[in-house]
Amino acid sequence: MMTGTEWLIDAAGCEPAGLADLGRMRALCEAIVADLRLGIVGEPRWHQFPPPGGVTGIYLLTESHLACHTFPELGVATFNLYCCRPRAAWPWERQLSEQCGAARVSVRCVPRGGIAMAAERSALRRAAVGEGE
Amino acid sequence: MMTGTEWLIDAAGCEPAGLADLGRMRALCEAIVADLRLGIVGEPRWHQFPPPGGVTGIYLLTESHLACHTFPELGVATFNLYCCRPRAAWPWERQLSEQCGAARVSVRCVPRGGIAMAAERSALRRAAVGEGE
Repeated sequence: MMTGTEWLIDAAGCEPAGLADLGRMRALCEAIVADLRLGIVGEPRWHQFPPPGGVTGIYLLTESHLACHTFPELGVATFNLYCCRPRAAWPWERQLSEQCGAARVSVRCVPRGGIAMAAERSALRRAAVGEGE
Repeated sequence: MMTGTEWLIDAAGCEPAGLADLGRMRALCEAIVADLRLGIVGEPRWHQFPPPGGVTGIYLLTESHLACHTFPELGVATFNLYCCRPRAAWPWERQLSEQCGAARVSVRCVPRGGIAMAAERSALRRAAVGEGE
């Protein structure tokens, strides 16, 4: 019943100017695609919002999708990488620190499609009410 | 530091024919967009893979993104809805049961951008090793 793995990456404390630079964020996503040998279907879609100029990029992949959203006003960039086939890990912490100046990077790995849903629901519920630290 | 909420929805035990029907999955996603009054930027991107004919749909939203992937061979559909602004809940369980014949629906709600990252990492780690059930 398992359909793949999704990585949820949140980078905080980034340099705002880089997060508002669509070309730079696009180059970063294209490095991810190349390094992990992902297959892009059609043209990626990129959009820059009005100032402070956050950007969104979305890639439809043969392996599912990659999405990037930046929030220069908060110094935050978030990424989703959903892969329905096994893939090597990408060095998110090091790359986002080097490329975006991220001070903190959270990488969460979430199974999709069924397996471990009950265990995770229970764990996320505990996290939501602040238990378990 | 919070940049929004992401809902991860996994529906299992669905009718395979519906999951391979791009028009039907697109109508379902467009109902989500309309019901939650989300703003679509540009054209949504839809793609049908070769038989068994899973489909992928990706919407770039003013509020972030909506993604849908179906796996007819497994009877599974997964959705991501990432909203950087508060939105009402959508009746995922009822709708996916009615529209896709889903036997089981998991709805996980994950904060993005920083808040609760430590608590959640700890909770997901416990879930991954099978504790806490």
